Amino acid sequence: MQRYFPILDWGRTYNKTALTNDLVAAVIVTIMLIPQSLAYALLAGLPPEAGIYASIVPILLYSVFGTSRALAVGPVAVVSLMTAAAIGNVVEQGTAGYAAAALLLAFMSGLMLLGLGLLRLGFLANFLSHPVIAGFITASGILIALTQVKHLLGIDAHGHSLPALLGSLGAHLGEINPITLALGVGATGFLFWVRKGLKPLLHRLGIRGILADILTKAGPVAAVVVTTLLTAGFALESRGVAIIGEVPRALPPLTFPPIDMALISELFMPALLISIIGFVESISVAQTLAAKKRQRIDPDQELIGLGAANIGAAFTGGYPVTGGFARSVVNYDVGAETPAAGAFTAVGLTIAAVALTPLFYFLPKATLAATIVVAVLSLVDFSILRKAWAYSKADFAAVAVTILITLLAGVETGVSAGVALSIGLHLFHTSRPHVAEVGRVPGTEHFRNIHRHDVECDPTIVTLRVDESLYFANARFLEDYIYARVASAPEIRHVVLLCSAVNAIDFSALESLEAIDARLSDMGIKLHLSEVKGPVMDKLEKSHFLDHLSGEVFLSQDRAISALARSGKAAAE
Amino acid sequence: MQRYFPILDWGRTYNKTALTNDLVAAVIVTIMLIPQSLAYALLAGLPPEAGIYASIVPILLYSVFGTSRALAVGPVAVVSLMTAAAIGNVVEQGTAGYAAAALLLAFMSGLMLLGLGLLRLGFLANFLSHPVIAGFITASGILIALTQVKHLLGIDAHGHSLPALLGSLGAHLGEINPITLALGVGATGFLFWVRKGLKPLLHRLGIRGILADILTKAGPVAAVVVTTLLTAGFALESRGVAIIGEVPRALPPLTFPPIDMALISELFMPALLISIIGFVESISVAQTLAAKKRQRIDPDQELIGLGAANIGAAFTGGYPVTGGFARSVVNYDVGAETPAAGAFTAVGLTIAAVALTPLFYFLPKATLAATIVVAVLSLVDFSILRKAWAYSKADFAAVAVTILITLLAGVETGVSAGVALSIGLHLFHTSRPHVAEVGRVPGTEHFRNIHRHDVECDPTIVTLRVDESLYFANARFLEDYIYARVASAPEIRHVVLLCSAVNAIDFSALESLEAIDARLSDMGIKLHLSEVKGPVMDKLEKSHFLDHLSGEVFLSQDRAISALARSGKAAAE
Repeated sequence: MQRYFPILDWGRTYNKTALTNDLVAAVIVTIMLIPQSLAYALLAGLPPEAGIYASIVPILLYSVFGTSRALAVGPVAVVSLMTAAAIGNVVEQGTAGYAAAALLLAFMSGLMLLGLGLLRLGFLANFLSHPVIAGFITASGILIALTQVKHLLGIDAHGHSLPALLGSLGAHLGEINPITLALGVGATGFLFWVRKGLKPLLHRLGIRGILADILTKAGPVAAVVVTTLLTAGFALESRGVAIIGEVPRALPPLTFPPIDMALISELFMPALLISIIGFVESISVAQTLAAKKRQRIDPDQELIGLGAANIGAAFTGGYPVTGGFARSVVNYDVGAETPAAGAFTAVGLTIAAVALTPLFYFLPKATLAATIVVAVLSLVDFSILRKAWAYSKADFAAVAVTILITLLAGVETGVSAGVALSIGLHLFHTSRPHVAEVGRVPGTEHFRNIHRHDVECDPTIVTLRVDESLYFANARFLEDYIYARVASAPEIRHVVLLCSAVNAIDFSALESLEAIDARLSDMGIKLHLSEVKGPVMDKLEKSHFLDHLSGEVFLSQDRAISALARSGKAAAE
Repeated sequence: MQRYFPILDWGRTYNKTALTNDLVAAVIVTIMLIPQSLAYALLAGLPPEAGIYASIVPILLYSVFGTSRALAVGPVAVVSLMTAAAIGNVVEQGTAGYAAAALLLAFMSGLMLLGLGLLRLGFLANFLSHPVIAGFITASGILIALTQVKHLLGIDAHGHSLPALLGSLGAHLGEINPITLALGVGATGFLFWVRKGLKPLLHRLGIRGILADILTKAGPVAAVVVTTLLTAGFALESRGVAIIGEVPRALPPLTFPPIDMALISELFMPALLISIIGFVESISVAQTLAAKKRQRIDPDQELIGLGAANIGAAFTGGYPVTGGFARSVVNYDVGAETPAAGAFTAVGLTIAAVALTPLFYFLPKATLAATIVVAVLSLVDFSILRKAWAYSKADFAAVAVTILITLLAGVETGVSAGVALSIGLHLFHTSRPHVAEVGRVPGTEHFRNIHRHDVECDPTIVTLRVDESLYFANARFLEDYIYARVASAPEIRHVVLLCSAVNAIDFSALESLEAIDARLSDMGIKLHLSEVKGPVMDKLEKSHFLDHLSGEVFLSQDRAISALARSGKAAAE
């Protein structure tokens, strides 16, 4: 029971100190989340209230089912962009169908996450390699910033890839609204200054610690207040500045995702990608924060928590959500101790939804776009290209391809191409493993590469150390390698495979070993194994391989060489 | 030059003995190939002469470019079935477009093989695991036999999967032609007897060795002669027995594959699968035969040889070809020494095409179907299911799924599903590697699993041996594993990763190690590595990981434990 309801664990020891800390954290996070939620809804192509709704019930459900103490669940930038891309391909933005498709996407994503969690399939997320994630996040950051440029300029533009967005922006460049531009550029500049220059200033003024942090995080709120007052005061909306307008004063509504088979099949892949990317983002944040307090995150239970949160979003007018980096870090920094802080945040946002929404009437969309641009540009980090290049060309290829394809063809194609490429390159490398021919280091029991060390060899014995598990992708490679080696030297009588680095032998490799043994026998050569690991030996003993093996299995390479050299000498005499 | 033209290698030392041996082999192989070529053309849905044509120029080209001394290239059962399935989905059988599509398929397959060979991409064939190939061949054998039942019964039927074939046969069961049935069943029974019972009989009669072999292989020729004479003598064609009819008396014609983009895109995947499966079949046979004489096969040059053969087939009225098992083994057994034997076989078949084709006029299709059924049923081998089950459940799953999907959905889907599943299962296994916590075997420098052996441990030090390369698919697994381990024991001060089985660390794993190190540091725990392999260490040294590592890299596990125990004691004092 406790496994599926972590709330039973932390709820039992909840006390007044924790309550106070959680309440303080909730107030601060609520203030930060209001503009953020509106902005991400805008990014997803949804009405602003959808962002608020997506931040209420999902947080509550996560606090019941999630295992992280500090994770704040709600709309995040990358998932909002993916939502816009997924639905934009199927339904036109601004229609009733668009919001309904967002509910369905959240519902499908929720069911997928829940299913993966219940089936304990969280490991599937591992197939997103770090280079692919890094490349994807960087390229997404650029795309997200570009989608907001239209709001900063006050023009119309569409598209989910770099060429489409640039083309669309270029076509409408003549329609720039100068007042919107001034507000947008002003807000963006102000927010960049808050991020970079405010903290040093506060420090010089003697304001440090948590207060300085809160003031810095409140930058977007200040931008919202100032630009809203400016717009309202000078009636800028009548001069072409796009504003948020009417936001309903209401509790999150009860909504039902439309069950439309055609739509479900079109949204299947996007929902899967959103689920997996959302999960990876969320679990990375959760693990980082948990490690600081020696707490533990259960990845499969996290899937259940995020699944519940998304299903909650689907039934309360939201859209796909996940654990966000920025909001979680703030939540942690300002002292949240348990998921109850999330629940209190939900209460704060509910109050905002019921009481504060009229205040956003004159809020310019350009201000929200500025908060998004400033937030996502911190995601853009090309240094991964340099780091990956220095470490391994294969990882570099994975980053570069993911960035390029994401920019050129959009988020779904980009991340799929990255995953396919990184799996392909991994298989490629393991299909051509490093094979060292080894000989004895004189006077020792060590055996090292004959090309790197000065070692003793017997010309009738070849010892090969394969630095990889033997499986179908490299089974034939090993065959080719051995045949080539023995064809070049007719004096060879023994081939020894040193298996210290062989962690597994699958059925294909077993059949290859049988074929190698049979063919070597035809040439009058014996095949031996040495230093076979326990689990590998267990499996070999289940097959008939060892019964037919022309040579022997030696416990150590030293014993193998000693025995074979003795038998060679005996034969010569 | 010699690399791309192996003929320059063996041609230089060609002498009279080799010539005599090659000529004898060619005569025998030619006799065996005539009915086989007609039969496989029938299986592919093509006119019978296509089988003869596909056996002439391709053999000649292979003898120039191929590296195997004994491989006989031409139409084979599985590739003929795949050709029928590929073209049958696109063009109606019996139309002019059908034969043209077969030329295009051979041309595309030839270009693909040539391209793979020139780019040295032969390793791609390795992704067909042995279980997938075995399952695919068995299921194909069943499908091929079923496609021939209509000829044995004298009815009409179509389909490329088990349900389609059975349904179609069932629907026409009322139209059985009794004379065709008698001929078909008679020929099938006779050929089975030749295969199983003739050799023992010959042995009892004192006929042994090569003569007995030749008589056994001549069974299909005898069946062809007898049933042709019966049909001609009793005018059985007028009583509903389907016969081969007019076969043009001609040299292989000059043909051009149609360059039709729509057709090319539809045939792309089938051509790729035919290329890879044909290559795998061919290289297996070639390596088996080469090993017996300590000769060497170059897989990339084999691709070039097969590519040239298929391009040759495309321009001379043929269809996709590859190195066949049965014909190559016969060629080898009867003494072929060089590819010249293949060239002489081509001459023999050319004579047949020009002079003997009228003799096939009354040859019943049922006889050819019988030769196919008897040949392919020897491919069907369900014992692979039992063997794979005993060795590993993952390999069993790959066989079972390949057999099932091939039977139910056809050859292309079947082999694709098998490949995808075997790659998926491999990744799954390496994503959850075996991790052993090890301790010192008392009085030694050996470290073994604490759960299997009675070992000494220091409660402040945890040593984990990961039996797998560290890469993106298991990087997060390792993080989870380590966090779970240290969260359970607050006394831990050191974590040592014993890397003796780690053959590679990719960029994702490197970042995971950095994250692990940082989080363990937050908990006051140091991370150490021991027994890191040379190539892995080279890569780590290129990164900044070692600069920031909280602990040390030890040459051996023994040194690690000794040093950490000393430092612990010093701290305690």
